[in-house]
Amino acid sequence: MTSTPFSALTQDQLDQELLTDFETMSAFGATPAGGVDREAMTAPDVEQRRWMKSWLEERGFTVEYDRVGNQFALLELVPGAPYVLLGSHMDSQPLGGKFDGAYGVLAGAEAAWRLARKFAETGHTPKYNLGVVNWFNEEGSRFQPSMMGSSVYTGKMDADLALKTADLSGITVAEALEAGGCLGTGSGPEAAAYAEIHIEQGRILEDTDTTIGLVEATWAAQKYHFIVHGEQSHTGSTVIADREDALLGASHLVIAAREIADSFAPAVHTSVGQMVILPNSPVVVAREVRVHLDMRSANEDLVKKADELLHERMAEIEKTANVRIEKDTAHAWGLLPYDERGVELSRSVAEELGLSSRNIMTVAGHDSTNMKDVVPSVMLFVPSVEGISHNEGEYTKPEDMCAGVNLFTRVAERLLEGELDREG
Amino acid sequence: MTSTPFSALTQDQLDQELLTDFETMSAFGATPAGGVDREAMTAPDVEQRRWMKSWLEERGFTVEYDRVGNQFALLELVPGAPYVLLGSHMDSQPLGGKFDGAYGVLAGAEAAWRLARKFAETGHTPKYNLGVVNWFNEEGSRFQPSMMGSSVYTGKMDADLALKTADLSGITVAEALEAGGCLGTGSGPEAAAYAEIHIEQGRILEDTDTTIGLVEATWAAQKYHFIVHGEQSHTGSTVIADREDALLGASHLVIAAREIADSFAPAVHTSVGQMVILPNSPVVVAREVRVHLDMRSANEDLVKKADELLHERMAEIEKTANVRIEKDTAHAWGLLPYDERGVELSRSVAEELGLSSRNIMTVAGHDSTNMKDVVPSVMLFVPSVEGISHNEGEYTKPEDMCAGVNLFTRVAERLLEGELDREG
Repeated sequence: MTSTPFSALTQDQLDQELLTDFETMSAFGATPAGGVDREAMTAPDVEQRRWMKSWLEERGFTVEYDRVGNQFALLELVPGAPYVLLGSHMDSQPLGGKFDGAYGVLAGAEAAWRLARKFAETGHTPKYNLGVVNWFNEEGSRFQPSMMGSSVYTGKMDADLALKTADLSGITVAEALEAGGCLGTGSGPEAAAYAEIHIEQGRILEDTDTTIGLVEATWAAQKYHFIVHGEQSHTGSTVIADREDALLGASHLVIAAREIADSFAPAVHTSVGQMVILPNSPVVVAREVRVHLDMRSANEDLVKKADELLHERMAEIEKTANVRIEKDTAHAWGLLPYDERGVELSRSVAEELGLSSRNIMTVAGHDSTNMKDVVPSVMLFVPSVEGISHNEGEYTKPEDMCAGVNLFTRVAERLLEGELDREG
Repeated sequence: MTSTPFSALTQDQLDQELLTDFETMSAFGATPAGGVDREAMTAPDVEQRRWMKSWLEERGFTVEYDRVGNQFALLELVPGAPYVLLGSHMDSQPLGGKFDGAYGVLAGAEAAWRLARKFAETGHTPKYNLGVVNWFNEEGSRFQPSMMGSSVYTGKMDADLALKTADLSGITVAEALEAGGCLGTGSGPEAAAYAEIHIEQGRILEDTDTTIGLVEATWAAQKYHFIVHGEQSHTGSTVIADREDALLGASHLVIAAREIADSFAPAVHTSVGQMVILPNSPVVVAREVRVHLDMRSANEDLVKKADELLHERMAEIEKTANVRIEKDTAHAWGLLPYDERGVELSRSVAEELGLSSRNIMTVAGHDSTNMKDVVPSVMLFVPSVEGISHNEGEYTKPEDMCAGVNLFTRVAERLLEGELDREG
């Protein structure tokens, strides 16, 4: 580490610490175009977790895994007290960006390490213990659903169901975690509060020249998994009138989703990102297509109206394409507010540090979306250049990264003193 | 095999021989729903080839593989003379039917074995040698393009290009053939003529109560491989106006293809059977989708018009979906006639045997589509119940299978005498 006392470190030295470590961690799964490919429990994810473990252990933290592979690094300052958890996730989308999630885990680790050094130097004991968390499979690209680790931790998803979930090649979460050496036991440490910092993945902070986004709510969302049922036949010889083409039905669904977004533009976002086509042969009309459809809005009523429209369209598509559309699963959440007190706490820290800030909503889900329902939670954003996300070109400026960690450290310090404790 | 002289075998015994062998071969890759799953060089395809090799070797044929895994069983009756080849393919689509291709190879083997026994008994020497062929990868589901083995044999495709072709998991044809023990050398035996019998894969013979289809031509076809280029982004947070959704563009292509077929109904068939979506994650807008589009008609002009319409639609789709559509490959053929003399020869055999027959066109491609361009070739159909094809429910009645082999044997016998030899 360094022999310089913490209080003697300059801001420049602290910034350098952060940026150097970020460069190191961005090498895991690095892609030629400047992104990362680090899906949950693939080799780069496993290697990066190993690196993070060493980094934290060398700094006095105890690293452990719970039963669904959430990685916790704990520093007990107050025997038996619950933990203020700081973190995010280190898995990425295929050919994703290096900031999404990874920045938040490193920010948590850097903040925790700054506070640990400060407490060691000053002899101060906070109210709560200090923990860093790297949630398992936030991205949900390899194993569905997303935010799996924090869903199990917060009791929203059954652990056994998560462990049995298989990727497209049939490997289960349990097998992948076991193979990666990340399958622990138990349900993780008790949390007193949670804080997460993330890149915005949108353009608002950049467009308004703001450094810090104070997340006040999550957009309402409706996620569906449809199975379009057709009948396998020959692409050439089967007469058109006899066809029950599941891919034709799925294509109509993709377009219906976009048309619904257009009809409420720009207030509703919709997309189909994944389709599994069976048998997916050039000369066979598909018998079945599995479709993931994602629909979001800051306005709950619009999500309801969009959902109604989609169901009307589905009935039409079944006739047009001569298929049957089964709604396999649907998962919805309303407009979910974050604790106002956390927003105000963070705003006051931004003012204290001279950083511009504004309230903002998150469209993407985050692990804090789960955590805020069980403990006081704070969610913060730093700007994304051009809003580029889930793309190798994702970028956040070093000065914004550094400002974010400074703010995050101070927010964490105040959480450690119990500032957001609820009356009991 | 049997000690009964060939001439003493009853029609019933010959039929039983055929149906028993067909049952045996249908067990390779059999699926619970009564179909087969036997893609090129998967384990069931390899095992079935091994079984076919033993069957033919036990009956005095010499079995060899050429450089692209075409399986030939040869019986030299006239030293140095070219071969009349009888056959089809034994690979299937995923969850395909057990008759498609496999019936034709067995028909070839049974016909060859009947003729071999007859010649042995009568001491007659025909003009040409007798060969059975099982073409490699006719289906084109695992390795594209389809009809790969016969395309290389007839010089229409470069052997090295075929060998380098990889499946979706990156395994090449060369690797798959090597692993399956089916990679030979050389370019196969010289052919004097070719005959193939296949199930119709359509409803015409059934609807007209006809036993034998005399194939006079192949539908004109246009096959495309498009790459739809978009930009990877977040399905939730990216504003709709910023999206370049490759899957949206691909979906528009699927629907455009169908609308074009509808506008020429029922004279044009179109379909998209395969799409490869990258990265295919539920929360990522696709950056790229690869699309196989298939367009066919008995009318060459309609194929040209449909192609023009498709290109108009592509330009519109590029604007609507904010994507770029690249035409990676396009492969077209016109209305391709079969040798009229082969049609007449087969018609006269049908009359001789008291079987109903009619001229017919094939919509699907067959290995004979390649062979007819290099040697006199005959293509015959037996009825498909309800026209079901590339589906586990594909069915041809035993009496039609038996009638087909009787006719095919007699057609082969006449080809062996050089009846379709061209002047000069």
